[in-house]
Amino acid sequence: MSLAKWPKIDVTADRTYPVFLGSSLEELGEYLHLQFEDVEHILVISHQIVAELYSERLKKGLLNYRVNLLTVPAGETEKSLERLAQLTTAALRCDADRKTLVIALGGGVIGDLAGFFASVFMRGIRLIQVPTTLLAQVDSSIGGKTAVNHPAGKNILGTFYPPLAVWTDFSTLESLPWEEVENGLAESIKHAIIADRSLFEFFENEEKSIKLREKSIWGEMVTRSSAVKVKIVSQDEREQGVRGLLNLGHSFGHALETEMNYRGVTHGQGVSIGIIAATHLAYAKGLMTSSEIDRVKRLLDTYGLPTVIKGQDPEALLQRMQSDKKNQGGRKILILPKGIGQAIVSKECTDLEILAAWKQVIS
Amino acid sequence: MSLAKWPKIDVTADRTYPVFLGSSLEELGEYLHLQFEDVEHILVISHQIVAELYSERLKKGLLNYRVNLLTVPAGETEKSLERLAQLTTAALRCDADRKTLVIALGGGVIGDLAGFFASVFMRGIRLIQVPTTLLAQVDSSIGGKTAVNHPAGKNILGTFYPPLAVWTDFSTLESLPWEEVENGLAESIKHAIIADRSLFEFFENEEKSIKLREKSIWGEMVTRSSAVKVKIVSQDEREQGVRGLLNLGHSFGHALETEMNYRGVTHGQGVSIGIIAATHLAYAKGLMTSSEIDRVKRLLDTYGLPTVIKGQDPEALLQRMQSDKKNQGGRKILILPKGIGQAIVSKECTDLEILAAWKQVIS
Ligand SMILES: NC(=O)c1ccc[n+]([C@@H]2O[C@H](COP(=O)([O-])OP(=O)(O)OC[C@H]3O[C@@H](n4cnc5c(N)ncnc54)[C@H](O)[C@@H]3O)[C@@H](O)[C@H]2O)c1
Ligand SMILES: NC(=O)c1ccc[n+]([C@@H]2O[C@H](COP(=O)([O-])OP(=O)(O)OC[C@H]3O[C@@H](n4cnc5c(N)ncnc54)[C@H](O)[C@@H]3O)[C@@H](O)[C@H]2O)c1
Repeated sequence: MSLAKWPKIDVTADRTYPVFLGSSLEELGEYLHLQFEDVEHILVISHQIVAELYSERLKKGLLNYRVNLLTVPAGETEKSLERLAQLTTAALRCDADRKTLVIALGGGVIGDLAGFFASVFMRGIRLIQVPTTLLAQVDSSIGGKTAVNHPAGKNILGTFYPPLAVWTDFSTLESLPWEEVENGLAESIKHAIIADRSLFEFFENEEKSIKLREKSIWGEMVTRSSAVKVKIVSQDEREQGVRGLLNLGHSFGHALETEMNYRGVTHGQGVSIGIIAATHLAYAKGLMTSSEIDRVKRLLDTYGLPTVIKGQDPEALLQRMQSDKKNQGGRKILILPKGIGQAIVSKECTDLEILAAWKQVIS
Repeated sequence: MSLAKWPKIDVTADRTYPVFLGSSLEELGEYLHLQFEDVEHILVISHQIVAELYSERLKKGLLNYRVNLLTVPAGETEKSLERLAQLTTAALRCDADRKTLVIALGGGVIGDLAGFFASVFMRGIRLIQVPTTLLAQVDSSIGGKTAVNHPAGKNILGTFYPPLAVWTDFSTLESLPWEEVENGLAESIKHAIIADRSLFEFFENEEKSIKLREKSIWGEMVTRSSAVKVKIVSQDEREQGVRGLLNLGHSFGHALETEMNYRGVTHGQGVSIGIIAATHLAYAKGLMTSSEIDRVKRLLDTYGLPTVIKGQDPEALLQRMQSDKKNQGGRKILILPKGIGQAIVSKECTDLEILAAWKQVIS
């Protein structure tokens, strides 16, 4: 038997690890068996709803292991130290030890929480990411960032803890509510804008198939979008440089989400509006033409992602950006697209320019 | 200016870092200034009592930085997730960010807790260990292990997070209560037994000077004992092999501590008795002579460390060892001295033999 039958892209950072794209949940056990001889005990960490949908398929391949399923309620607030403590208690009750392997089965919340847990339990145990949302497949499962939140902010505590492998089964996306698909599309389109012009065109051309969730097209979409993330984190795992480009739209989006108290705007919607604000800044800096802005707007619009927001105060939004943890020495670090398919990091935007960009996305 | 004026030994593991031995608290700022250009904000994490004694001396060198002192109550129970959460809140209130540098000023509790905090705050910020107990200077500050406890056990959550440097000022030991000195001596003597016969002889010969806390002798003691730890973690940072030798006496000692509910026996006393139990096992396996056992007993005794314990049930103690997290596949992993100055890892001890060893240390 060999590993060659599963298509993959490797992340080549501090440690090389594979991102398997299009393999099936049932086969993960076979892979583990081939690759890690001394695994006996497996902890599957998931949400109840995801476990109901997919844990049986996963467990089919895990008959040779002692498997425990730990579920946590869904929701961003579950990414907490309290939940980490509870996971720890539950894991010890199942006699988890240094040789236990964790499977994070779920979206980005599970990936971040279970990943953080695996990184600190007994100073680090083995971890496999099995992403089941579009966002997790194209973005959060790749790159090794784990985290929990703190009342004062998102992802305040965490680690860089690359998994041993990412195991992506496209079929899990069939059950994903469209709102969650949108969150993933926002990130995928962001990947296209910062690094892959032909992926942008793919999104333009495949509107219908994507909306109908056509299997082969979704496979291609996830594969190509993941490849962007793989390439970027391979160059800069610790976010000292190019990885920062992945934040396109996020400083704006995050300001909007917090200003609106995370109500009435999803993460994907925030990113979408943020991308447009960034394109306006890029235009002001001579990095983009107005027809390129229109093209980006049109694409986001095609997929139901908003490009404007009603009734917000631009000054308040600017204020929110003041406390962004990416700021350096009082300067805002912003990502600006350079045409379509490239982007740059800029510390040169004045508050006035940022304010003007906000005004462009407020209706 | 150059770094050469501060004597040091390097840990050469994944990343190389210096253990400065005998430098002064006041000079740490100068070192930081020479070595890390972009530090602006420093968080000193300590106990109230240690801060009262030493933070002023430390701060003398830190005039060019924005410095905040965060204190946590003393005690093993402070190594907790709750305390980590509180440190996080306090750090954010002081506007700590990714560029903040943490100084862990204290014994092993502060080193483990502040080290864990530094390793996860914003996915890892800079850390300098400034150990102020003998145990921390010769042992816990070196090697990068950080941790907090969980109700179900010690050090259940943690990271491998080597500091940028260890900054050891011998003079801080002057205020250390003798009971705490004993905890450190137990580990130092353990280092001698597992890896440095001449250090063992040093302890035999320098009894008086050590008890009188003669400066130069204490400097030599800390330096030589630290060197053992440095050498071992340089060979095996992640405890896959030789680092395990540092656990000599600990499986026994830990069983004793838990059986006695951490009352009536200090960690150092547990280790001391544990070392003797291990020597008896080593004798049974033909690794030690009875005169070597006597020599070890005599040395521990010299320094007021116990070699027997009253009124314990050997069966109960054996039972406690069943749940040691170092066990593998039901087999107990024990460290046995091989004469004086060497040790081995053994999976070959039967329960009967272990029981016999316990009986030798119960009076
Ligand atoms: N680590 C990183 O690099 C990184 C990158 C981006 C985002 N994130 C994090 O990811 C999180 C967001 O992740 P997300 O968007 O996947 O949200 P999520 O994990 O909350 O999942 C969204 C919802 O979908 C449900 N779900 C998951 N899989 C499903 C499936 N196959 N079918 C039906 N329902 C399913 C979940 O139960 C949940 O209710 C945030 O916490 C964010 O901080 C992390
Ligand atoms: N990370 C590792 O590799 C490692 C190795 C061994 C032990 N440890 C951990 O170390 C901890 C024990 O450390 P410890 O023995 O240093 O205990 P400790 O940190 O609790 O310190 C002992 C006491 O001495 C006080 N103190 C500290 N410095 C002083 C000074 N200079 N003068 C006067 N009082 C002072 C403290 O306030 C405390 O009350 C345990 O939690 C153990 O798990 C970690």
